[in-house]
Amino acid sequence: MELRPPKGMRDFLPEEKRIREEVIEKIKRVFELYGFEPAETPALEYAKFLEGKYGEEEKLIYKFQDRGGRWLALRYDLTAPLARVIASNPQLPLPFKRYAIDKVWRYDNPQRGRYREFYQCDVDIVGSKSMVADAEVVACAFRALKELGFEPVVRINNRKLMNYIMGKIGVKRPTGAFRAMDKLDKIGEKGVEEELKRRGIKKVREIIELLEVRDLKEVEKRFGESEGSKELRELFNYLDECEVKYVFDISLVRGLDYYTGPVFEISSEFGSIAGGGRYDGLIGMFSGRDIPATGLSLGLERIIEIMKKEGMIKDPGVKAKVFVAEVNQKERALRIAEKLRDEGINTEMNLMERSLGKQLEYADKREIRCVVIVGKRERVTVKDMESGKEEEVEEEKVTFKIKEFLK
Amino acid sequence: MELRPPKGMRDFLPEEKRIREEVIEKIKRVFELYGFEPAETPALEYAKFLEGKYGEEEKLIYKFQDRGGRWLALRYDLTAPLARVIASNPQLPLPFKRYAIDKVWRYDNPQRGRYREFYQCDVDIVGSKSMVADAEVVACAFRALKELGFEPVVRINNRKLMNYIMGKIGVKRPTGAFRAMDKLDKIGEKGVEEELKRRGIKKVREIIELLEVRDLKEVEKRFGESEGSKELRELFNYLDECEVKYVFDISLVRGLDYYTGPVFEISSEFGSIAGGGRYDGLIGMFSGRDIPATGLSLGLERIIEIMKKEGMIKDPGVKAKVFVAEVNQKERALRIAEKLRDEGINTEMNLMERSLGKQLEYADKREIRCVVIVGKRERVTVKDMESGKEEEVEEEKVTFKIKEFLK
Repeated sequence: MELRPPKGMRDFLPEEKRIREEVIEKIKRVFELYGFEPAETPALEYAKFLEGKYGEEEKLIYKFQDRGGRWLALRYDLTAPLARVIASNPQLPLPFKRYAIDKVWRYDNPQRGRYREFYQCDVDIVGSKSMVADAEVVACAFRALKELGFEPVVRINNRKLMNYIMGKIGVKRPTGAFRAMDKLDKIGEKGVEEELKRRGIKKVREIIELLEVRDLKEVEKRFGESEGSKELRELFNYLDECEVKYVFDISLVRGLDYYTGPVFEISSEFGSIAGGGRYDGLIGMFSGRDIPATGLSLGLERIIEIMKKEGMIKDPGVKAKVFVAEVNQKERALRIAEKLRDEGINTEMNLMERSLGKQLEYADKREIRCVVIVGKRERVTVKDMESGKEEEVEEEKVTFKIKEFLK
Repeated sequence: MELRPPKGMRDFLPEEKRIREEVIEKIKRVFELYGFEPAETPALEYAKFLEGKYGEEEKLIYKFQDRGGRWLALRYDLTAPLARVIASNPQLPLPFKRYAIDKVWRYDNPQRGRYREFYQCDVDIVGSKSMVADAEVVACAFRALKELGFEPVVRINNRKLMNYIMGKIGVKRPTGAFRAMDKLDKIGEKGVEEELKRRGIKKVREIIELLEVRDLKEVEKRFGESEGSKELRELFNYLDECEVKYVFDISLVRGLDYYTGPVFEISSEFGSIAGGGRYDGLIGMFSGRDIPATGLSLGLERIIEIMKKEGMIKDPGVKAKVFVAEVNQKERALRIAEKLRDEGINTEMNLMERSLGKQLEYADKREIRCVVIVGKRERVTVKDMESGKEEEVEEEKVTFKIKEFLK
């Protein structure tokens, strides 16, 4: 019997889960530093709310009918559900700065670190059309990654600018061109050229030439100033105040359909680990009333994978500080354990029929700092596994002695 | 356009989410006090792993085929997935004490506080057949509820005892009888009687008489000592050491099929808020190798609902401590905000085109403690919204002054 979780999904045993919690805690702390607040939506959405949002990727959505015949879908990202929430809560004061650290599901090919169930860590600012909002989400994600030990660089472009340039060049179907350009990192210039041709896009030479452009000034020199380029200049100004390391990258467009302004991707020395952008039209798709919004998503799985591989994190270990060992003294052991817990000391006790030696071995293997040994005699032994020091004390002195050892 | 989440599911805006996080944090803290460790499984399981585990409730499972034709199901509880994990990880050292605070899904009738997506908070001990393990899960859940402000009472019975008694009385299909008896609270003695008859169960009078029994001694007097009654006496002994308030309740059997020993239900003055029991056979259903296990699940939704209604909890408020207000000074405001964040102070800044008055109103409404006002002049104003005190300082003194105010 195959007992593993469904393909592309994972169980996290305590060792792994502790690491994940530590990383999530750090990210959350930085999100709060920027005044983002937590909000949560269900894992399931009405399928219609997710359709028409993700372009070619829509086929990856997990979709099914419930017993009542309703079409439901597991959320594909945390952004479309946020847009729905904003649209359905017109009373919400704006700007609305929310973070969410939660699971999403994609029927993807589970290879090269891709999963079918994985976490995203999102910050979004809803209600502000100012580039300072974009600067804040970028600075926040940048800081979170720095705190985790990365050397992040933010690559930035602007969909408005790209649409403008495509117009100037005379490309009719810019979306197809964008999809091809976006793969520059993966498939190289030759690859992009081939894909452009395969997609039947004209002006291939001009597009390829465009990929050589390295800075915004050159863009403005060639194509003139535009709303998109002005936005980027403003954004870069703000980012300079935040000491964020960024570069302009004309090949960056990002896959999702709903971006309308600046787009971001954050890379570390080990590849891309975060992405996002402005999506001023998405909320309007739900409510008819356009509300500007911008956001960024950290790829938790990739981040953790790199951190583990590069030794940037280690298992913080079990939280139990005391193990109460006993032989045929379960009542007393339990009483002592409860007293320690009363004092806020994380305590485990023996739950098996094991010899004292085996119990000490267990405590040692789990790296639990102190052991209390409850035998037949009235006094019990308290042992510091780190220093090896041990003392016999009366039962009511155990907590006191443990506190002394733990100090 | 209907913009709410799917029927029986909810969005949690920051106000609500902050409360939920606070409650979860407290529960988690107590779980860790007992040496439980976190583990996580996917939301989705192969459907076959959930089938045949929940008795009549199985019809509530959300089930569907993925694109590859596999039957998947959203987990119905956190226990069956744990059993699968144990079965598939024979290397795990036992006892394995894990907690999980996570979502489950049931296609239930969304009324009277029942949801189709909701959280459970589970502690389970795997690998110990000792009643001290049962005592630990009960004591842990009891303590968590006390810390939240409840006056919990644990009702306890034993499936083994009930099977034994049913045998003595001569009831052929005890499962049906149990389901009826379990509803005593809801439908009363008359109701149980009717349901027993409707289910075609014989010995109705004897079963109803049984419901009058109030203590374990009486049971042993009537039916003799049995393995089940001995287990309960041992468990009660342990619970006395933990200062847990409990009662023996012969009507308690609990709906799930997989219980094999003691079963628990914790009530507060406002109804049932937790339940669980021993399930020594469940892991064997996965691996063929029986491993004893016992656990308890706190009903988070019910707990939060009561706590809110009874004023046992209030919104802890936003975490931002400083709001940076400005008029046409976004760069400087951002620079000051970033400096405050460097010092670990949660800071928001103005992201809109608003008058200073409106900005102060916003900060006040959100109950943000301090405001920094960045105008055209070099010096900025730092204001303590609580005391009303304000001071003009140089830009580089802002952090220092804010720290003084927050002290």
